Amino acid sequence: MNAIRTVAIVGAGLVGQGWAIVFARAGKQVVIHDARENAEAIIGAQIEKAVADLVEGGLCDDAGAILSRIRFARDLDDAVSGCDYVQESAFERIDVKREVSLAIDAFLPAHAFVGSSTSGFPGSAFYEDCKNRARMMVVHPVNPPHLVPLVEIVPTPWTAPEEAARARQLMEDVGQSAVSLSREIPGFVLNRLQGALLDEAFALYAEGYATAEDIDRTVRDGLGLRWAFMGPFETIDLNAPKGLADYAERLGAMYSGFAGQRKANRDWVPEAVARADAERREVLPAGDLDARRSWRDEMLMRIVKAKR
Amino acid sequence: MNAIRTVAIVGAGLVGQGWAIVFARAGKQVVIHDARENAEAIIGAQIEKAVADLVEGGLCDDAGAILSRIRFARDLDDAVSGCDYVQESAFERIDVKREVSLAIDAFLPAHAFVGSSTSGFPGSAFYEDCKNRARMMVVHPVNPPHLVPLVEIVPTPWTAPEEAARARQLMEDVGQSAVSLSREIPGFVLNRLQGALLDEAFALYAEGYATAEDIDRTVRDGLGLRWAFMGPFETIDLNAPKGLADYAERLGAMYSGFAGQRKANRDWVPEAVARADAERREVLPAGDLDARRSWRDEMLMRIVKAKR
Repeated sequence: MNAIRTVAIVGAGLVGQGWAIVFARAGKQVVIHDARENAEAIIGAQIEKAVADLVEGGLCDDAGAILSRIRFARDLDDAVSGCDYVQESAFERIDVKREVSLAIDAFLPAHAFVGSSTSGFPGSAFYEDCKNRARMMVVHPVNPPHLVPLVEIVPTPWTAPEEAARARQLMEDVGQSAVSLSREIPGFVLNRLQGALLDEAFALYAEGYATAEDIDRTVRDGLGLRWAFMGPFETIDLNAPKGLADYAERLGAMYSGFAGQRKANRDWVPEAVARADAERREVLPAGDLDARRSWRDEMLMRIVKAKR
Repeated sequence: MNAIRTVAIVGAGLVGQGWAIVFARAGKQVVIHDARENAEAIIGAQIEKAVADLVEGGLCDDAGAILSRIRFARDLDDAVSGCDYVQESAFERIDVKREVSLAIDAFLPAHAFVGSSTSGFPGSAFYEDCKNRARMMVVHPVNPPHLVPLVEIVPTPWTAPEEAARARQLMEDVGQSAVSLSREIPGFVLNRLQGALLDEAFALYAEGYATAEDIDRTVRDGLGLRWAFMGPFETIDLNAPKGLADYAERLGAMYSGFAGQRKANRDWVPEAVARADAERREVLPAGDLDARRSWRDEMLMRIVKAKR
């Protein structure tokens, strides 16, 4: 097994840019290929800004060293043929994913492997015709990956287990926090957990139990404080004298009771979506969305720093 | 409407102790009544320790001033008859809640009101026979309330709306973060949201998609970093160019798809509970649970501080 020295970033929107920072920050050589016109100028400036924010947030010191490890490749084969790992973050459309995967496949060195950033598709939906599909899988980050460390590694039915293990090792080596799924499932783990919480939040809101602001508050001033450093299992493990099984024995029936009262249909009620959106726009006018996104990234940095 | 100067704490286990700190820290006079033998010695020492931890964590300065505002009352009537508000945190059993509520009811000043810390029962299950039930409700904290600010205010069918509003105002005044439910629902908002996430976590675990450690990681290194300072609605509001409704239009169908694949029966599979517990005990031996709880409280203080 070769050491990973060079990583190719294929597709460098916000997700690909974050990946470039993750790998360069960890000392890897990064080659970015993005098919857009003027890619280098636009993407280079955005990466510089993001790295400057990291330095300002106290999360890294040497911006120059990070940036010096990133170069751009006009052609896909130039990026891929010399790399040890490809992180593909192309546009999220199934035909694009198929086409880009086949193009990567054509130039992939015999020792290299590939992870796709897709959140919406299983790898089996676009890797099938690749000759190197045993070395291809989903490596799904959270946006932005240079601030949120979680990465889901999802093998297809063709992915060799040792390649999935290599991806996990690489992620740990570059400072991300990797999760290994045993097989494909829509939404993987992260979006299924988020979806479960959102379903309940929308149901409570649709039925008028609380405002959207108060439901948000319940998470950000209650549940979320713990979940920032402990998962749901560790949380309940510490919340009963003898741990998780003790908690399930004491409170499992109560939680089952809630489930029984839930609606079978978990679609988000369109009226509730419209009303929640209107409530949000009163709190945060559309023109302030971007400023609030910057605030979010600053807060993320503070939380990440507080956890160290 | 009178100002709230004096708060009676009825029942002072860990939750009641946290409440005593919340109110005393905010300048209220606090009178604790706890029926146990030796209550003052035991509880006093535990509160002193918790306040010292707050000072050490940089979350407050003057331990002496806080402690000087707390006194103990051997008899319930001594605690309640001179107070403006009662926070009841008696043992979580329905007959105990009924009995204690009636005892408080008998001595409650005409201007005072009552909140119960219960997480498991709606107020209507134990306030019915109280003559002052219009001034009684659930005021449900998260443990420990002096570290986690979230409080759920849940009226019974008899609670006067202005009394629920007063409770919300009091909670905001003492630095808690209050959520107002329009009416009773089992689990209130917080535990329903937690339950939804736990149900999905247990289902994924039971079906072998990931280890308990990796599911925990997905929350603590992914979803939870945002949820520590933004709720689920604000999170998706910032995750689509035009906000929440835009997000629902782009991704609502995907989330509905997950729900459709979920099992109708959301009971926690006993075999999965046993296996998750065994996995936790490998990571954290039973003898280390208490030390890990102290670590949790330290981490909570760091997160709370980072948010300021």
